[in-house]
Amino acid sequence: MIWQMAKKIRSLTGLRATGAQHIGNYLASIKPAIEVQNSREGIYFIADLHSLTDLKDRELLRRNTLSLAALWLAAGLDVETQIFFRQSDVPIVAEVAWYLASVTGFGLLEKAHAYKDAVANGRDATVALFYYPVLMAADILLYQPDEVPVGKDQIQHVEMARDMALSFNAAVQKEIFKLPKAKVDENRMIIPGLDGRKMSKSYNNTIAICAERNEIKKLVASIATDSSKIEEPKKLESTIIGELFRVIATPEKFEDLKVRLAKGGVGWGHAKEELVEALESFIAPIRTRYNELISKPDYLYGILESGRDRAKALAAPTLSLLRETFGFSPSKI
Amino acid sequence: MIWQMAKKIRSLTGLRATGAQHIGNYLASIKPAIEVQNSREGIYFIADLHSLTDLKDRELLRRNTLSLAALWLAAGLDVETQIFFRQSDVPIVAEVAWYLASVTGFGLLEKAHAYKDAVANGRDATVALFYYPVLMAADILLYQPDEVPVGKDQIQHVEMARDMALSFNAAVQKEIFKLPKAKVDENRMIIPGLDGRKMSKSYNNTIAICAERNEIKKLVASIATDSSKIEEPKKLESTIIGELFRVIATPEKFEDLKVRLAKGGVGWGHAKEELVEALESFIAPIRTRYNELISKPDYLYGILESGRDRAKALAAPTLSLLRETFGFSPSKI
Repeated sequence: MIWQMAKKIRSLTGLRATGAQHIGNYLASIKPAIEVQNSREGIYFIADLHSLTDLKDRELLRRNTLSLAALWLAAGLDVETQIFFRQSDVPIVAEVAWYLASVTGFGLLEKAHAYKDAVANGRDATVALFYYPVLMAADILLYQPDEVPVGKDQIQHVEMARDMALSFNAAVQKEIFKLPKAKVDENRMIIPGLDGRKMSKSYNNTIAICAERNEIKKLVASIATDSSKIEEPKKLESTIIGELFRVIATPEKFEDLKVRLAKGGVGWGHAKEELVEALESFIAPIRTRYNELISKPDYLYGILESGRDRAKALAAPTLSLLRETFGFSPSKI
Repeated sequence: MIWQMAKKIRSLTGLRATGAQHIGNYLASIKPAIEVQNSREGIYFIADLHSLTDLKDRELLRRNTLSLAALWLAAGLDVETQIFFRQSDVPIVAEVAWYLASVTGFGLLEKAHAYKDAVANGRDATVALFYYPVLMAADILLYQPDEVPVGKDQIQHVEMARDMALSFNAAVQKEIFKLPKAKVDENRMIIPGLDGRKMSKSYNNTIAICAERNEIKKLVASIATDSSKIEEPKKLESTIIGELFRVIATPEKFEDLKVRLAKGGVGWGHAKEELVEALESFIAPIRTRYNELISKPDYLYGILESGRDRAKALAAPTLSLLRETFGFSPSKI
């Protein structure tokens, strides 16, 4: 009997560097990715080419990239075993996008949520906003992942990539691209923001993952509560404070606070203090590592460069196959 | 007094490799480009990435590319002084297209003729067909030409490239791209096809630039004429035979045939024989050189490779500037 090492599942995660990362992003996207890294051949990239749809400021782009890189590392990404790089460091992804565009019906992109939303909101859509699902499909397909972990709102992107891979393979009558699966975490938490809606930069209701204690305090102070008196019994569940506390603190701490509030005699002010403590305990170790890393841009760039070389090596066979398929010359990557 | 060499105007011409080239293409696009090559810093490329909108067959793509390369050389392109390459050999043009897409309004592309025609004709437009003016703009702007010689039907492409260059320069507040001028040759001939309409592959009315004598004979025999008898006087002008003869033969020969036909006693059959002779004299030297070149694919690829290196060297500063503008790492080209 021969024991075979099971080949690890190849998993791909790309995050846009959109400025200050918050605990919503961290809990929904970064932490789950880190948790499974030992059982995956993980590919992680900072989608800085995608950032250009919103932003062209050099300093801001650099700052956002470094910030996201520092956060991934602070969160515990193992850059020895996982591949971690900047999208812009493997720019031939744009070439692959063109190949995919040649087999993609115009109608498919019209159905894309981001484009439809932009048009519905009267935003003057750019070609990049319309085209970006093609670039995103190239981001995915170029690295031939087995799965792409996504939230429910992003299943469409992976499905589009699958559609394009299918159309492409059919058009050239070769199995060039593996069909990736969207891996939807049904238990993925929706992290409530300071106003009770989903925590999101666009709602301006976030707590930065690197917030300092006094900042956390100010933000928590701004959370709306009912005006019940200290002595009245209170219900922790389904309040903003409660739902935030639930995702940050241990179940035991949550239970404890819940019981004390239910008895009466504990005010919302006190509950807020405990939330601040919980947030501080949760954030502090990440913040410490983050602050250390962000002060060493050269170190971060070094990590990204080594990731770039490994990402290129991973992408090279697919690019060769593509160019050979069309009779184009081999091209360095 | 110091004499200064006037800097030559940089001129860019890209032709799609669409299969058998015909005398219409040759006279309208290739010959005029060759005629001015000594007074220009000329950049010529075979737009094989654009071919993918219609075609994915490897052998056909290769054959079309070699065929167009052989024709450019047979027509007299001086590859020592001019830059001649395949678009697919400088694939970072797709990266530049993405940068341009990020500043291009969706509405601009909706106005593009090719896309509008496809939609009007009920063709299922692909994303590539919609996006290709952006790739074409990148083709142009990456090489910073002063002028792009075009027929009237292609002015729009150069204007779109100018629009994108303007928007891009404004968005990054730097003069990255030179604004190219469309150079419209008002005297550019419209070459009539075998049915009197403009000679075009899509009308199936072409004479291949490398047609053999017996093929030419067969094609000319198929041209419709009126049924006047041999002894009747005939008017050469505004007939299909006459207009083809006009663009192929010398003015003297045209005048001579015109006079003889006007006298009567010369039939259309005879005029067709003279047209065959004129076409054969016109085509023969190009065909001989073409046949010699097309039998040496390695030689042609060698020429294209040397052109590739020079094209890359020309594009490198602009690419560097672009990547620097966004804070991306320098990237090899």
